[in-house]
Amino acid sequence: MKSIEAYIQANKTRFINELIDLLKIPSVSADSAYANDVLKTAEAIKSRLEEAGCDLVEITPTDGHPIVYGEKIIDTNLPTVLVYGHYDVQPADPIELWDSPPFEPIIKSTELHPDGAIFARGACDDKGQMYMHVKALEFMVSQNELPCNVKFMIEGEEEVGSVNLAKYVAENKTKLSNDIILISDTGMIANDVPSITTGLRGLSYVEVEVTGPNRDLHSGLYGGAVANPINILTKMIASLHDENNHITIPGFYGKVEELSSAERAQMAKAPFSLDAYKEALNIEAVYGEKGYSTNERNSIRPTLDVNGIWGGYTGEGAKTVIASKAYAKISMRLVPNQDWKEITQLFKTHFETIAPKGVTVNVTPHHGGQGYVTPINTVAYQAASNAYETTFGQTPIPQRSGGSIPIVSLFEEELGSKTILMGFGLDSDAIHSPNEHFGIWNYLKGIETIPYFYKYFTDLKQ
Amino acid sequence: MKSIEAYIQANKTRFINELIDLLKIPSVSADSAYANDVLKTAEAIKSRLEEAGCDLVEITPTDGHPIVYGEKIIDTNLPTVLVYGHYDVQPADPIELWDSPPFEPIIKSTELHPDGAIFARGACDDKGQMYMHVKALEFMVSQNELPCNVKFMIEGEEEVGSVNLAKYVAENKTKLSNDIILISDTGMIANDVPSITTGLRGLSYVEVEVTGPNRDLHSGLYGGAVANPINILTKMIASLHDENNHITIPGFYGKVEELSSAERAQMAKAPFSLDAYKEALNIEAVYGEKGYSTNERNSIRPTLDVNGIWGGYTGEGAKTVIASKAYAKISMRLVPNQDWKEITQLFKTHFETIAPKGVTVNVTPHHGGQGYVTPINTVAYQAASNAYETTFGQTPIPQRSGGSIPIVSLFEEELGSKTILMGFGLDSDAIHSPNEHFGIWNYLKGIETIPYFYKYFTDLKQ
Repeated sequence: MKSIEAYIQANKTRFINELIDLLKIPSVSADSAYANDVLKTAEAIKSRLEEAGCDLVEITPTDGHPIVYGEKIIDTNLPTVLVYGHYDVQPADPIELWDSPPFEPIIKSTELHPDGAIFARGACDDKGQMYMHVKALEFMVSQNELPCNVKFMIEGEEEVGSVNLAKYVAENKTKLSNDIILISDTGMIANDVPSITTGLRGLSYVEVEVTGPNRDLHSGLYGGAVANPINILTKMIASLHDENNHITIPGFYGKVEELSSAERAQMAKAPFSLDAYKEALNIEAVYGEKGYSTNERNSIRPTLDVNGIWGGYTGEGAKTVIASKAYAKISMRLVPNQDWKEITQLFKTHFETIAPKGVTVNVTPHHGGQGYVTPINTVAYQAASNAYETTFGQTPIPQRSGGSIPIVSLFEEELGSKTILMGFGLDSDAIHSPNEHFGIWNYLKGIETIPYFYKYFTDLKQ
Repeated sequence: MKSIEAYIQANKTRFINELIDLLKIPSVSADSAYANDVLKTAEAIKSRLEEAGCDLVEITPTDGHPIVYGEKIIDTNLPTVLVYGHYDVQPADPIELWDSPPFEPIIKSTELHPDGAIFARGACDDKGQMYMHVKALEFMVSQNELPCNVKFMIEGEEEVGSVNLAKYVAENKTKLSNDIILISDTGMIANDVPSITTGLRGLSYVEVEVTGPNRDLHSGLYGGAVANPINILTKMIASLHDENNHITIPGFYGKVEELSSAERAQMAKAPFSLDAYKEALNIEAVYGEKGYSTNERNSIRPTLDVNGIWGGYTGEGAKTVIASKAYAKISMRLVPNQDWKEITQLFKTHFETIAPKGVTVNVTPHHGGQGYVTPINTVAYQAASNAYETTFGQTPIPQRSGGSIPIVSLFEEELGSKTILMGFGLDSDAIHSPNEHFGIWNYLKGIETIPYFYKYFTDLKQ
């Protein structure tokens, strides 16, 4: 299948420009102000799937943002690959920290991306990685290299917890039936150290509201005499970790999967420089749960982070006020066996319990999802591994990721199929951050590698 | 001087409408967007002082907002009263909690103000209370009842710490020379329980910034492995109070004035209902420093309150991000003998000391001022007490206030004169809060009482 390299060379500029066009549409799913852009993006994906060779493409409305489904069935006796991806993106703020506008993509070279990277919100997560599959399909169909059936399910709510996807999947089990699910929404260790993500963390995301007095108060007349909701909120959040940075919510660690020392030793072999890590983030020291390494803390251990906090006067200058309310958005990353709904309930109960008299607390669950572990002794993993080996020249390392794709465990429950996570981005691509980017080399390498997965998977399944 | 009541009856509607006109100008000193409105307000005050009978009125520019000075000198052998007030107001946010637009004054009756109250930002603090003195002057001049000399110094930066007033006072000692300073920028216990404020708390207001990684990070990929600036900020703020709600900053209580049990017993006589207090704020319990009553906590004890906090994603929906920075505005109310500059330094040193490795901390002092205590065995206090007795029919109670007027102690240092705090507002007037208001009865009662102070003070000084 050497022709893939030639095909990419011949169509490279078009591939890049098509992605840039997609990135110009601000499909921010979390903010209803962008609802129309999200819809426009779904319509663009539909056209691109049709152009790439799908026989059937449809946009299915949901209670939130629509789902785009496409398929190319060549022979029902052949295996079927279901590609999942998402066309929605994270909010771009803080806007002021972007070096260029988040929805005006530009190409710049970086130390890790000497051939240039596309800078835009969604470049890597997940428009760029999702679109690799569309272009891989274009190649396979146009060059008669498609060895099996393929289905696409591209959603618009991944960044807000895939709230309507579960219903869609449950109602379309036959349509979505497949032999393997293929997703590119994770990363790899480095361009010269390919890796396949074999584990994902679960997620529980909540919003808390602490209410004290029924109105904002003058901090002179009332200061010291009433519970200040902001002070109380800081005390409550601070108490969620102990001096060893263990999470203090009763029962939180009850079902946490403990890895054997052998597994931990295996993990520790992945190339990692703590100095380079600290330098890249410009921090003097790392910080985390006692007894675990940095790579363990962000992959096999559960966490609790405040993602946002606000209350009182945050404008220019000074206002001597005691706010009536204070708020925080808090997310917990979970590991396999922790049930996100159970953890959300444990959090809610605990947080309400530790609220002192004088304030009332309201905990609102946002969304969540289960963790996931991919077995590596399967045909699908072998096919993916061989594909990387073919195009990267070396065997990829299996790696646990700290991120979450809540939908993966749901796919297994509803559709009974495993998922392979072939990621081509780098941790340094700043997904969810200002100046998100995706290396052009990585984008094209993904398009080159994916057809080999189809080939090897089909061969191995026969 | 019975004619004052008749004069007020005859001019009441005009007095109210003139105040309403002043309240329509949004003179928010903290926000530079309102700089022009602040200036317009200063010009309005100038005209009103001229109309009221001042011989000389001038607007003096400063590095910030201008100061309005006015005077009516009838005989240099007679005593001189210097009236201080401010024409700037607090920011109006949170706007959404106002029942009517903050700069479109309306009159509504309330349980405590059956004759109606004017609802607008600045109605009580301090446009309404400051303007009582202008109308009192109008009466005294027009009816030949002015017994002494009077000077006005009305500033536009009180709500941002009177940052440029000190320089002005130091440079104009002769012009501002006086026998007593008179200020209405405090409250009284109730319309049927007049009181005179004999103590003010000092203030130290700082802003803190906690910086972790050099950019916002994906909370899945980095969560648990790096110091999250928001989590760290909550831990640092929470640690500023111990389990008894004592402030933990080393040296913070070093110079705190400890009242004798006799003084505390005297204070405890002021009418106060804890149930009514809790009901008015709709809180189940009060909260504060162990070993002190509510009235002690908000008057004779120092405090530390977070006035604002922000960081990370605070928009609609969810964003799984670890912010690079987190911020808080923190103010400390100080009691007599605590030096605000020393306390600010103690805070800065302590806060920087408790920052863990992995974050950097930046503490920026906003402004501050010293506490103050008025002696009650003086001619001025006696004159004020007699004035209230004349118009309210009972002797006012001396009361410590939790609020701060940083400039008062500076006046004593620079001008060598004491200050009398004749406040006519109520704690429930919601100054610094949404729906601030000032009772029309209180407004007119102030105008009625002030001329008696001039009369008694001049008599007692002869």
